[in-house]
Amino acid sequence: MSAILIVIMQSVEYVFEEVVRIYDTDAQGIAHYASYYRFFTNTIEKFIHEKVGIPYPIVNDELWFVMVESHATYHKPVKLGDKLTILLTPKILSSKVIKFDLKIIRKGELTTEGNLTQVAINPKIWKAVDIPNEILSKLA
Amino acid sequence: MSAILIVIMQSVEYVFEEVVRIYDTDAQGIAHYASYYRFFTNTIEKFIHEKVGIPYPIVNDELWFVMVESHATYHKPVKLGDKLTILLTPKILSSKVIKFDLKIIRKGELTTEGNLTQVAINPKIWKAVDIPNEILSKLA
Amino acid sequence: MSAILIVIMQSVEYVFEEVVRIYDTDAQGIAHYASYYRFFTNTIEKFIHEKVGIPYPIVNDELWFVMVESHATYHKPVKLGDKLTILLTPKILSSKVIKFDLKIIRKGELTTEGNLTQVAINPKIWKAVDIPNEILSKLA
Amino acid sequence: MSAILIVIMQSVEYVFEEVVRIYDTDAQGIAHYASYYRFFTNTIEKFIHEKVGIPYPIVNDELWFVMVESHATYHKPVKLGDKLTILLTPKILSSKVIKFDLKIIRKGELTTEGNLTQVAINPKIWKAVDIPNEILSKLA
Repeated sequence: MSAILIVIMQSVEYVFEEVVRIYDTDAQGIAHYASYYRFFTNTIEKFIHEKVGIPYPIVNDELWFVMVESHATYHKPVKLGDKLTILLTPKILSSKVIKFDLKIIRKGELTTEGNLTQVAINPKIWKAVDIPNEILSKLA
Repeated sequence: MSAILIVIMQSVEYVFEEVVRIYDTDAQGIAHYASYYRFFTNTIEKFIHEKVGIPYPIVNDELWFVMVESHATYHKPVKLGDKLTILLTPKILSSKVIKFDLKIIRKGELTTEGNLTQVAINPKIWKAVDIPNEILSKLA
Repeated sequence: MSAILIVIMQSVEYVFEEVVRIYDTDAQGIAHYASYYRFFTNTIEKFIHEKVGIPYPIVNDELWFVMVESHATYHKPVKLGDKLTILLTPKILSSKVIKFDLKIIRKGELTTEGNLTQVAINPKIWKAVDIPNEILSKLA
Repeated sequence: MSAILIVIMQSVEYVFEEVVRIYDTDAQGIAHYASYYRFFTNTIEKFIHEKVGIPYPIVNDELWFVMVESHATYHKPVKLGDKLTILLTPKILSSKVIKFDLKIIRKGELTTEGNLTQVAINPKIWKAVDIPNEILSKLA
């Protein structure tokens, strides 16, 4: 593993394995750019289930996580059948907002990086709310 | 236009134009098989809006149309940028159930056929209900 | 487990576990009807990888499996976070065509059934070809 | 129309109309965050077809446009049936790279903004190439 990957790995909270499926690809023979967000979403959902133990992003009738920003940079294309390792680092930006940094590695090479930012809301009034402490403490 | 297409056209209620987008395709260089359901869905939604003038498939708090069956047969693949003509024929199977027959034509050639069947429900109790007469009469 | 499920299980070749993701759902609060084809596709791809050990559906430059028919019947809706068990039974219809019967079970209850039929082709000439014996023998 | 929208409109090159479809939504009752990239993609493809008159993003065997970056900020959610106006401003970053700035307006209100950056490549060698002058001149 390269030195740069070792540095990346040091701050990583969670590692997820995924495979590029036929429906992820497009006629350019590579994963469609929006499909990488499927890989990101799967990683976050599995992380939250395992680490925090709550349904996600619909936690309950009074707590949802909604997306406020998405970003991805595509360094190398990934292809049908490629085995991906997705590295997740959550960052608590405020009592209401979490940012997830994500990196996609294939055979030791960084192919894609990006982030997703979500805000906690009460869906009944569609307003930002504080993330409960028992959730925040497990994310930190 | 071929004789068979003329016969097909005779029973058709609605015609919709669509283009195969990059996200509809997969690494086989053709539209992914599930993408044809996107073409079908677009056709039905536009038909209902124009012909019946209601939101669809969520009409209101007490009337939703939910899918009970989907079927497609793929005769010829369609490709990125292909201009498709989608022919829709609705059939009222009962006071609660509508079946939509769909055919996809490209340059006068039948490429795909299929159908979608939807039942009217009251989402509060998730039970089948009669489709209101003012909707049924516009569909017939 | 009910008697009907025991009968279903007897002919099953492969069992796959899947979770309903946020992107599988739609505004009706249930999995979108076309998302079930994602569950079907995942099951078939994993089955072929494990049982036959080949890339799929693009096996190599001279052998692809392309979809010729898809069908699903939706008995009960599935929701965000539901854990699904997908049962797969492949049927060799001819030396060129395989049909995959699929059933989706949630908590011991049959929610969805359907099938996908694929034909082997040589993509260079886009004509049906015989599935090689070493693949057919592992599927049977 | 508000003052801020008038300023936004001044630099806009292309306007596209779109409707939020059932398959764009998720169980939060709003468009899924990755669906906005569908709206962005549709706008760019239609713009290129109309303004430049070439297939896109697969122009020919020696010229493809591939995605190198995607970004979206979600200010207000959009819902099933919402009529969206998507405003596109292309920026030529170099002889090889185009950035598309996109804004989604609903009823005069800015709901979403983002951008997509694409690089021209020769797919046979998967290397960046200069965008032909006849294309660049029509984009400017």
